[in-house]
Amino acid sequence: MTKTTRIGLIGTGRIGQVHARSISELDHVELAWACDPFIAGAEALAARHGSRATADAAEVFADSSVDGVIIATPTSTHVDLIEQAISAGIPALCEKPIDLDMTRVDSIRDRVREAGVFVGLGFNRRFDPHFAELHRRVQLGDIGRLEQLSIISRDPAEQPAEYVATSGGIFRDMTIHDLDMARFFVPEIVEVTARGFNSFSDTTRELGDFDGAAVTLRGSHDELITITNSRHSAYGYDQRLEAFGSRGLLSVSNIAETVVRHSNDTLVEARQPYLNFFLERYRDAYRLELEEFISGIHGAEVSTPDFEDGRAALLLADAAEESARTGQSVAVDLS
Amino acid sequence: MTKTTRIGLIGTGRIGQVHARSISELDHVELAWACDPFIAGAEALAARHGSRATADAAEVFADSSVDGVIIATPTSTHVDLIEQAISAGIPALCEKPIDLDMTRVDSIRDRVREAGVFVGLGFNRRFDPHFAELHRRVQLGDIGRLEQLSIISRDPAEQPAEYVATSGGIFRDMTIHDLDMARFFVPEIVEVTARGFNSFSDTTRELGDFDGAAVTLRGSHDELITITNSRHSAYGYDQRLEAFGSRGLLSVSNIAETVVRHSNDTLVEARQPYLNFFLERYRDAYRLELEEFISGIHGAEVSTPDFEDGRAALLLADAAEESARTGQSVAVDLS
Amino acid sequence: MTKTTRIGLIGTGRIGQVHARSISELDHVELAWACDPFIAGAEALAARHGSRATADAAEVFADSSVDGVIIATPTSTHVDLIEQAISAGIPALCEKPIDLDMTRVDSIRDRVREAGVFVGLGFNRRFDPHFAELHRRVQLGDIGRLEQLSIISRDPAEQPAEYVATSGGIFRDMTIHDLDMARFFVPEIVEVTARGFNSFSDTTRELGDFDGAAVTLRGSHDELITITNSRHSAYGYDQRLEAFGSRGLLSVSNIAETVVRHSNDTLVEARQPYLNFFLERYRDAYRLELEEFISGIHGAEVSTPDFEDGRAALLLADAAEESARTGQSVAVDLS
Amino acid sequence: MTKTTRIGLIGTGRIGQVHARSISELDHVELAWACDPFIAGAEALAARHGSRATADAAEVFADSSVDGVIIATPTSTHVDLIEQAISAGIPALCEKPIDLDMTRVDSIRDRVREAGVFVGLGFNRRFDPHFAELHRRVQLGDIGRLEQLSIISRDPAEQPAEYVATSGGIFRDMTIHDLDMARFFVPEIVEVTARGFNSFSDTTRELGDFDGAAVTLRGSHDELITITNSRHSAYGYDQRLEAFGSRGLLSVSNIAETVVRHSNDTLVEARQPYLNFFLERYRDAYRLELEEFISGIHGAEVSTPDFEDGRAALLLADAAEESARTGQSVAVDLS
Repeated sequence: MTKTTRIGLIGTGRIGQVHARSISELDHVELAWACDPFIAGAEALAARHGSRATADAAEVFADSSVDGVIIATPTSTHVDLIEQAISAGIPALCEKPIDLDMTRVDSIRDRVREAGVFVGLGFNRRFDPHFAELHRRVQLGDIGRLEQLSIISRDPAEQPAEYVATSGGIFRDMTIHDLDMARFFVPEIVEVTARGFNSFSDTTRELGDFDGAAVTLRGSHDELITITNSRHSAYGYDQRLEAFGSRGLLSVSNIAETVVRHSNDTLVEARQPYLNFFLERYRDAYRLELEEFISGIHGAEVSTPDFEDGRAALLLADAAEESARTGQSVAVDLS
Repeated sequence: MTKTTRIGLIGTGRIGQVHARSISELDHVELAWACDPFIAGAEALAARHGSRATADAAEVFADSSVDGVIIATPTSTHVDLIEQAISAGIPALCEKPIDLDMTRVDSIRDRVREAGVFVGLGFNRRFDPHFAELHRRVQLGDIGRLEQLSIISRDPAEQPAEYVATSGGIFRDMTIHDLDMARFFVPEIVEVTARGFNSFSDTTRELGDFDGAAVTLRGSHDELITITNSRHSAYGYDQRLEAFGSRGLLSVSNIAETVVRHSNDTLVEARQPYLNFFLERYRDAYRLELEEFISGIHGAEVSTPDFEDGRAALLLADAAEESARTGQSVAVDLS
Repeated sequence: MTKTTRIGLIGTGRIGQVHARSISELDHVELAWACDPFIAGAEALAARHGSRATADAAEVFADSSVDGVIIATPTSTHVDLIEQAISAGIPALCEKPIDLDMTRVDSIRDRVREAGVFVGLGFNRRFDPHFAELHRRVQLGDIGRLEQLSIISRDPAEQPAEYVATSGGIFRDMTIHDLDMARFFVPEIVEVTARGFNSFSDTTRELGDFDGAAVTLRGSHDELITITNSRHSAYGYDQRLEAFGSRGLLSVSNIAETVVRHSNDTLVEARQPYLNFFLERYRDAYRLELEEFISGIHGAEVSTPDFEDGRAALLLADAAEESARTGQSVAVDLS
Repeated sequence: MTKTTRIGLIGTGRIGQVHARSISELDHVELAWACDPFIAGAEALAARHGSRATADAAEVFADSSVDGVIIATPTSTHVDLIEQAISAGIPALCEKPIDLDMTRVDSIRDRVREAGVFVGLGFNRRFDPHFAELHRRVQLGDIGRLEQLSIISRDPAEQPAEYVATSGGIFRDMTIHDLDMARFFVPEIVEVTARGFNSFSDTTRELGDFDGAAVTLRGSHDELITITNSRHSAYGYDQRLEAFGSRGLLSVSNIAETVVRHSNDTLVEARQPYLNFFLERYRDAYRLELEEFISGIHGAEVSTPDFEDGRAALLLADAAEESARTGQSVAVDLS
């Protein structure tokens, strides 16, 4: 008989709720704790899932029946919570980024390395079935040697000013997902060149941030990787990927709810706008990410991005920020 | 607090197992009984879902806590089981067809009508999100008045000879789904013209059946409906639909596992073969069909095809068979 | 030095002008005569192309420097003009149909056969580069044995009542192109089943004609061929073809002026409506048809449909008309 | 009666022959001279087109019946030939680039400006019907305000080492087309950032050139433009364009010879590789470019890129080269 895996969820906001739903969809996995300083939120989620609620993460870490925790709290709390997870010897899946400040990340780097407790980072897009299949086929050699990678990533709608103000900037908040996707294909990045743009949002400009970005990465074998970002997209969430190799091309286009196409006297073959946001677009990815984390808890070799991947993505985001500010390419060393 | 709906599943073969999985995916719905004369199958399924097992359907109908039954047994048993469901006052969802013999269907028609117990028919394709969306948009008037409907339906691989021998023939076994799809859009069909073909299968020919078919239906407002069938398809399950109206066209193309496309030096934009069979292609449809049936149990107005729809589809299949045999169009009256 | 081929064009209406333009686009081909009883039209065309004009076809046939004639006059004159061409020993390319009356066609059948003068029929669609490429790949065996063929053919807009009244009916006027396309792939047709529909046009109904049609053909090896017609199409000229074989599918979709796609907040990937009519859609086909005819004049083995193909298409159209009127499949013998 | 326009063609190599063919396809335009120091080539072309041949361009400029010249000679001769055209008062269409050395370009800049003789630059892609239609719709406001532009441009196969050695480098030879395309949409570019890559070609690396490039341009209203180049592409000539605006997206995908798609048991919806090179892909563009130039000769207001556009493209290419070498973004002033 399969043992049930008991998960403590720390942070019951939007992302926390996504994870709670994924937990409910998996067999033999249950939500043991819903934890949030905003206790009403924790309690509501706990009630829905038949779990216990607490405002204090220490209670979760003290529960020896907990098999793993998901850290879905505000970024500034991640480092502390990772430390507590390590101390308690409980595997953790932490939302990205580890922190907005690399010195804080590095302050626990050695401890994480030595602890021998798994710390995964929530770069869920690696688990998207479409991107994962493209990756699998690149690994199989279907396009020969990988030479170029194009990532287009546009959010459907501008975030509110309060979000932008504390986000750490477009590179650490939004591009970081694409930087990890780049490393999914080309782990060793040696150079970052970035330009930031203020194409439409006065709010973002006034906050000193960019609403669009173009990033060029160089891999250690001179792979060319481009990332194009925008903070809005009229036609829905734009998430595309192309891998160009010596023998061909593999691409993932956007996803709509249905494959229905419509033709009339002014246009033909039209589809409805794409899935509107990451909750819909990456729903499968969140579930598969969780499945992989659960496997890791039980000792399997997993492909979940880890603390070092989280650190690498932040380091690249910092380099992109620097390059965008100085107009100079930045050499990076991820080792 | 939502009451749990208890379902008795009669028939635990391939389709029965699909329904059992759908039940496990729905909140507040549980499998109360797994019933099959092949008791080992029933017991295995019961064990997986924590339900009771029996070889005798009477036990299921005698359980007053059962809210609804799903009839997923061989066709020849459907009429008897529907009768028992009606007698027990338990709503039933019955797999298609009701029977291969119209006289048997008509023998319970009045009883079903008078009983006031819901009898749904498992024409799951109406619940496919793609076809349902196309239907919704036709109803909204997006293509004006519906004039023509094209249904292409090709199975991925030939069924074994034993299956074909007892299937009732291509029209009653395979085309019947398409005939119901036609009625989803044009309920009143007045004429059936059909031709049967033996394009590839000697086995089927020797059994006196066809491996391909072309059916033309006429709606009561002179709508033109074509159905094209084949018992095999090299590129996977071919399930397409087009609605042509006075102001435009709506279409549903085939579905593959991912949207990955591949280009190399001999071909470009290639996708992987389509989802291989109805279990994958119509997985969502089965779940949504069940959800609708559950809503019906609780008194909601539902769009589930009912006994009369099941009878109409069989009547059209019989007419198609007759037309294919005689070379003559057949007038039908579905009222 | 390549000798110039001199063409006499009989009929300078819409189709005649298409041929005149094709002639002007080919090297070493010139329009020798523009002939039309409506002499003003002939003279205008002759002026544009530097050729001679006449109202009398006999003048063209009497000119021994003419290498070939194109017959693009009203249908009722085709048989006489073919006879004159044969008598003069001048190869002819005649627009379809040969005649609306099979007895008139058969009245010259033997003479055409015995004359040894090439008489081609203007089934231009065989020369469309897309359909021709599909045909080439079927011949190459890319889909194994051909089992089913689907032809969708919808005109962009209803023809005026006067046109419909003298057209010979939808089967002889419109479907005839699709019947020839069917024979391009499956020359030996043994059975015709057809239904006619009056879905939208009161005018057409009052004229005793149909505005839509569904035709099912059976090939001598039990190939299944379906043709779907409509006399209008909101989204432009709808000309599609699919060949289904034991090992795969080949398809030709519709053609638009450009490949530009547009996405906004209500629809994505929309294209502009398809090329609006046969003059645009089949422009290349007309030119290639003419090139092939010229090659034939100079003795090359050509793939141009001939008198027998024209007769076969009319015979199938007659059979379709009969089937649509009687509700009975019609056996045909094209030999 | 329309007067015939007489064109002198200087340079009868690959591009010169493309122009000669376009001339032969246009009404009322004739090739007056074929001029090339390689006199055998000039004579062969002249024979085919019924024109005069010469090894000396001065003869062409001295012919007062010449209405315009096309300069399709090696780059190093362009400046001199433009000067001669101006002196002779004959409008010229010059292949790109004007020169590889900006000081030489600037040495005739004032003379060209003051001469009042039209000097067009052969950025033919602006005339491609697909790109032109996309441009037209951006101008119409179909996507609101233009915010981002993506240009993907990959040659089908590596050029020979001798070509690369004298090409001026990837930015001046290949990217220059994309830089002009960028200016077609965003004339005022203020910043260039570029990275060069050596992904596959040892030959190119040894010549000190790149085989791939990523360029990011900034428009004066903070438009973001990305160009991705590769010197090879397994699946054919890759020429794509996307314009992203505040209200939507317009895109042009690649073009294949036909729209035939093929499905079998290992892949579905596959097309044949794209048109293989610029001669096929841009055949229409070359003809339309020439038509526009002819209109300009006769005094019409034309959209043909002119000397200043040629200079701007070279200036951007130089800036890209500098940025790729220094790792620093380069501010540019095109005024």
